[in-house]
Amino acid sequence: MARKPGRHFLNIPGPTPVPDRILRAMDKPTIDHRGPDFGKLTLKILENLKPVFGTKDPIVIYPSSGTGAWVAALVNTLSPGDKVLMVETGQFATLWKKIADGLGLQTEFMPTDWRRGADEAAIEARLRDDKNHEIKAVCVVHNETSTGCTSPIALIRKAIDAAGHPALYMVDTISSLASMPYMQDEWQVDVTVGGSQKGLMLPPGLSFTGVSQKALKATETAKLPKVYWDWKEIIATNERGYFPYTPGTNMLYGLDEALLMIQEEGLENMYARHDRLAEATRRAVQAWGLETLCANPRDYSNTVTAVLTPAGHSADAVRLLILKNFDMSLGVGLSKVADKIFRIGHIGDTNDLTILGALSGVEMGLRMAGVPHQRGGVQAAVDYLAGVAGESAVHQVAAQ
Amino acid sequence: MARKPGRHFLNIPGPTPVPDRILRAMDKPTIDHRGPDFGKLTLKILENLKPVFGTKDPIVIYPSSGTGAWVAALVNTLSPGDKVLMVETGQFATLWKKIADGLGLQTEFMPTDWRRGADEAAIEARLRDDKNHEIKAVCVVHNETSTGCTSPIALIRKAIDAAGHPALYMVDTISSLASMPYMQDEWQVDVTVGGSQKGLMLPPGLSFTGVSQKALKATETAKLPKVYWDWKEIIATNERGYFPYTPGTNMLYGLDEALLMIQEEGLENMYARHDRLAEATRRAVQAWGLETLCANPRDYSNTVTAVLTPAGHSADAVRLLILKNFDMSLGVGLSKVADKIFRIGHIGDTNDLTILGALSGVEMGLRMAGVPHQRGGVQAAVDYLAGVAGESAVHQVAAQ
Amino acid sequence: MARKPGRHFLNIPGPTPVPDRILRAMDKPTIDHRGPDFGKLTLKILENLKPVFGTKDPIVIYPSSGTGAWVAALVNTLSPGDKVLMVETGQFATLWKKIADGLGLQTEFMPTDWRRGADEAAIEARLRDDKNHEIKAVCVVHNETSTGCTSPIALIRKAIDAAGHPALYMVDTISSLASMPYMQDEWQVDVTVGGSQKGLMLPPGLSFTGVSQKALKATETAKLPKVYWDWKEIIATNERGYFPYTPGTNMLYGLDEALLMIQEEGLENMYARHDRLAEATRRAVQAWGLETLCANPRDYSNTVTAVLTPAGHSADAVRLLILKNFDMSLGVGLSKVADKIFRIGHIGDTNDLTILGALSGVEMGLRMAGVPHQRGGVQAAVDYLAGVAGESAVHQVAAQ
Amino acid sequence: MARKPGRHFLNIPGPTPVPDRILRAMDKPTIDHRGPDFGKLTLKILENLKPVFGTKDPIVIYPSSGTGAWVAALVNTLSPGDKVLMVETGQFATLWKKIADGLGLQTEFMPTDWRRGADEAAIEARLRDDKNHEIKAVCVVHNETSTGCTSPIALIRKAIDAAGHPALYMVDTISSLASMPYMQDEWQVDVTVGGSQKGLMLPPGLSFTGVSQKALKATETAKLPKVYWDWKEIIATNERGYFPYTPGTNMLYGLDEALLMIQEEGLENMYARHDRLAEATRRAVQAWGLETLCANPRDYSNTVTAVLTPAGHSADAVRLLILKNFDMSLGVGLSKVADKIFRIGHIGDTNDLTILGALSGVEMGLRMAGVPHQRGGVQAAVDYLAGVAGESAVHQVAAQ
Repeated sequence: MARKPGRHFLNIPGPTPVPDRILRAMDKPTIDHRGPDFGKLTLKILENLKPVFGTKDPIVIYPSSGTGAWVAALVNTLSPGDKVLMVETGQFATLWKKIADGLGLQTEFMPTDWRRGADEAAIEARLRDDKNHEIKAVCVVHNETSTGCTSPIALIRKAIDAAGHPALYMVDTISSLASMPYMQDEWQVDVTVGGSQKGLMLPPGLSFTGVSQKALKATETAKLPKVYWDWKEIIATNERGYFPYTPGTNMLYGLDEALLMIQEEGLENMYARHDRLAEATRRAVQAWGLETLCANPRDYSNTVTAVLTPAGHSADAVRLLILKNFDMSLGVGLSKVADKIFRIGHIGDTNDLTILGALSGVEMGLRMAGVPHQRGGVQAAVDYLAGVAGESAVHQVAAQ
Repeated sequence: MARKPGRHFLNIPGPTPVPDRILRAMDKPTIDHRGPDFGKLTLKILENLKPVFGTKDPIVIYPSSGTGAWVAALVNTLSPGDKVLMVETGQFATLWKKIADGLGLQTEFMPTDWRRGADEAAIEARLRDDKNHEIKAVCVVHNETSTGCTSPIALIRKAIDAAGHPALYMVDTISSLASMPYMQDEWQVDVTVGGSQKGLMLPPGLSFTGVSQKALKATETAKLPKVYWDWKEIIATNERGYFPYTPGTNMLYGLDEALLMIQEEGLENMYARHDRLAEATRRAVQAWGLETLCANPRDYSNTVTAVLTPAGHSADAVRLLILKNFDMSLGVGLSKVADKIFRIGHIGDTNDLTILGALSGVEMGLRMAGVPHQRGGVQAAVDYLAGVAGESAVHQVAAQ
Repeated sequence: MARKPGRHFLNIPGPTPVPDRILRAMDKPTIDHRGPDFGKLTLKILENLKPVFGTKDPIVIYPSSGTGAWVAALVNTLSPGDKVLMVETGQFATLWKKIADGLGLQTEFMPTDWRRGADEAAIEARLRDDKNHEIKAVCVVHNETSTGCTSPIALIRKAIDAAGHPALYMVDTISSLASMPYMQDEWQVDVTVGGSQKGLMLPPGLSFTGVSQKALKATETAKLPKVYWDWKEIIATNERGYFPYTPGTNMLYGLDEALLMIQEEGLENMYARHDRLAEATRRAVQAWGLETLCANPRDYSNTVTAVLTPAGHSADAVRLLILKNFDMSLGVGLSKVADKIFRIGHIGDTNDLTILGALSGVEMGLRMAGVPHQRGGVQAAVDYLAGVAGESAVHQVAAQ
Repeated sequence: MARKPGRHFLNIPGPTPVPDRILRAMDKPTIDHRGPDFGKLTLKILENLKPVFGTKDPIVIYPSSGTGAWVAALVNTLSPGDKVLMVETGQFATLWKKIADGLGLQTEFMPTDWRRGADEAAIEARLRDDKNHEIKAVCVVHNETSTGCTSPIALIRKAIDAAGHPALYMVDTISSLASMPYMQDEWQVDVTVGGSQKGLMLPPGLSFTGVSQKALKATETAKLPKVYWDWKEIIATNERGYFPYTPGTNMLYGLDEALLMIQEEGLENMYARHDRLAEATRRAVQAWGLETLCANPRDYSNTVTAVLTPAGHSADAVRLLILKNFDMSLGVGLSKVADKIFRIGHIGDTNDLTILGALSGVEMGLRMAGVPHQRGGVQAAVDYLAGVAGESAVHQVAAQ
């Protein structure tokens, strides 16, 4: 096989490019998971995770894919036949619903056209209707990786409160955590579902649930079989830095380093950076004269932009041409939007020059694939970032 | 903290020392799990796994700890209330039983004194008694990591057949796979449970189930909620090299390298090496005048040796003294044998000089802790290995 | 210190970005430099180096910076007081001359304005004048890293031949090897000077001399003290794969991997890639309305482009602003052109998207620094590369 | 090729086992050697090197093998024809002399039988004889890697002073630095020659000269061509953290980490550890009834022990048998003692259990090779280390 020179551009919306520091941190000898060094490592990680979730409550780490944390959120808090209200924001919300169905829960799925986030007013209306509080949980995906639309988590909290409804509030933050503002405690989210391979910059293999006191209380009466996912035993063993199962030591090495890097950059700076790179991407799309799948500007995602190819032009053909010619991976359109969109990931360990390289690849791909568009998307992004960087450069000088 | 010079001796019975080649293989950029390179990687891994399990049937890989594969084995094949026969060979068999209970299965637990493996005659007798075939599965741990006793998997197969019983046969090989002979197909095991962090020489984080055709058939009527663990969807997606969830890419890099290393050494050579190092360890224990927990020579484990400290002498004190003075981790005594034994792991990527270094550490620790014993354990192991190596050296010369 | 997100853009003309594969290859345990595995490694490396130098003659590897290979070329072939003809193509030619002076050689330095390569006609004229063949060596830098100008090595060979002059011909290929066509044997170069940290994609720390039979013969009468640099002993010991000194084992691991990667890509493909990326860079510079330091299109370098900032605009200020705001390193102007130029490296393990990211950074930097220029450099490069890639994409399809 | 399981035992007296932390530190992207981060790195390294050399004077780092530092010591301080007094302690002293000869110096070589270090009384006598102070430098190897004998550096200083002789004092510490006590300033050594691949735990590729003020002064009148090795330019450029050549960036990453590790362990602890492991090794040799090459107990080396095989028994055959059967590399006998000795390295990142593993390999090799010896060498080492460790364990408890 011919060697591909230079670095691969991994611009799918996750797994995201794992920084060298994290790969190297994982490349250390595995240690005794019952020894004193391991205990210290766990306690440090659990402490440093809290600000990322915006919580002071326990965070549970699973050796599993993100799917596992979806399961954990439900089995720890609910009983067979319980009703949960979910919103069909896209493919990942659909998969979560499928899991709830598989566990014997009764799901109610509020539709969207996959071009916007959840509608807080519709949720409020539905909850007001639920006089008997049959709905036990409201489950929303913060950032729909399949569409590039976010849902207004804080406003949905207000909607639940306005309806005076006691349902648990569960949020999937897999592709938003550490990339877009998120505050579990302030927004009174009861279960936060997270994964390692997005904004946390790790390979896939760890998932997380942030657990409110209300959720912890719910576990006492929850009747679904918990086994592998049982919070109680993990939280108890975690107190001294250990786990009731053999934990994924080398992934934890990587997580430890990732949390240190997050501290070094600062969460606010990370949010601002994702916002800037996302805006540059959207300006490129606009300059090309193409449309984003997300039709509601309020809901634009700062981690992934899904681009519609004009009718009659295969998005997958564009993706494959770009992979072949420019060694860049873009996200595929899933399910309902298969072959109609490609997704540009701008999440995790990315910077201005990397995103401009990626946008250059998209523009060249559009041209080579014969997709109707206007030149100048990269230039628009360059203009935007030079302006923003220019302003911040001025500020830096002033601040010194 | 003062630096500890030289390499840590990780002589717990798993996680085992991860070879540099595997760590370095994992230290590669994460790639698109939906791209063509990933598909090729998966197919190669699935093919190379088969000889390790001794099967031509599908093997399912989970991003989870070994506990996950225990769950998977049960939920994919059984229904609530099904009866399973298990054998209390030690702590890990006990944990597996606890999971079966948690899933709503009806468990029957045949006792042992934790000093031997399962009794095939007792199993046969129990199955003969089960005229109505209420028992749906027989679950045995091949190598009890907590005691250093193995169970005779082939003989138990014969016992099941002799009783003419149709129960599924499930075997936990977490700490025996790739270290002791194991043949799923030949022994007609229906589900083989495996983990990454022992003989496969990987960090923890992946688990496996080898699945016979009979087990696959059982999934069609199994009623336990499967969700995360569902074989069917994984096996279907695996056919083209992909996964229905985001797989643990970097762990798979490591697994790919591990399987290559296993091919290079050869499974038969690996089994012989584990046998030789285990025998050297047992000779050292004998020379010290100490007793192994395993009281039945037929059941001696080739991956871990549990050593009883004389009454009144804390095994944990010996372990801690050795950790502190010689930077070696030994396995702790669990549950019923807490503080009564320490366990010497001789599993995975280990060789003659490493095990002799480890045995030296144990002998020095016994002396420094004031545990009554006789000098000369290391010397006995040296004598044994020089003899064995001498013979094989002669053979090597002859073979050239 | 605040963390810089994403990858650093190392666009100096060397050290160049070291590919992960090479870093990982270096990250292996050091082995016995007198053992059998080491011997095999050396022999493989020496064989694979030959096509890179375009020679069948010996190549000598030094654990040293490139400076060392300059010394080695001279001390192995010349005697105190010997006259050497050198061409002042820029800063590195000047440093080589300084070394020749320091060794007690008599140097004659043909000037240029640092904006072009060596003039083959002038060399021919000078050699014709040298009736008594007092000039013992002609030394030329193939690619002047400090100016981005190449010298016509094949034409200078013809000039020497046309003058009927027996001088040794020595060429510094430090920043051209494996990036621009080079054929030691075909061009009858007597000593080729190379380094690890440019087109070979390694960290700095190894240097090379390719040695013709004529040069080997010259060593017999050469009187300068050779000691550390002595070819004879190294070549003799190399025959069985060893070295007369302790070699830089881990750098050799990296070199072994680099040579494998060169084979995988193919030298011709590497040359073509460097040509394409260099042309894209030059088109960007042209679109900005700026001037390259190299004033002679025949001499344009394919590995580095030096850009003049308009009078009154500090090149260093642009560089520092770019480093600060976009985490990209550009090459500094050295000596005579200090603060007048910045240099864009497009050498080694680089691809289309990376260079477009880098050019974006330059364009944003020019704007933010207030350097007069026209927008659209990146766009010009995108247009060029989309066209070239488009053609080659067509060719790829046709070739399948 | 069959895979060798477990870790290779690298028990040659250098290159020594490179700790994972150092390999990983080297496995980082190469950065701009003219950028601000690089400057900080250099300054930190130069500061942290000083205690290792026991000096406050400048230390010069070369990208070269140790041979390079030998050259550097001589060319920076001496002129053609200068007389130097050297002591033939073994093979490496002989090579250093050969270099001095090659540079046109006049060498006087005091013989030994290769079984002891330099004789300070003989040196004093010779210097007293040198009334005209024709001898410009006295050159001694601190630890002769080829014989396992040390020379009394402090006593030789006293001898020079007692003779009232102004010669420069140069010491090769390549295989003693950071392993045995060494104090350049206190012992008034003028040039300390060091290398990376021994006690500094790095791969080969860097060498060092520690330079006293007297040596610096000598450079002003020294007439040998210095070029590559010129202290003056390096020291001047180092002041701001840079180098006059392209430095070996990734090796410097490793050095930075090594110096941090040395600080963490503490030099005194490192010296004590080497002493303990060397003594254990000597006790094993004694128990085997074999003889060390070093015949003078005062001169025993703490980093390497050379063992004589009985007449008629090939030391190389033992080494090769051990390499083949136990995957351990031992040092070869060089030159005069070829095939008569094998050398056990116990230098660098080694600990009790590793050395006991190594000694086990030697004992098994002796037996399998049919070399007459007595059993029990490993046992003697175990006994010794258990005693010593026992005492220090008590001390640790007391100190807490």
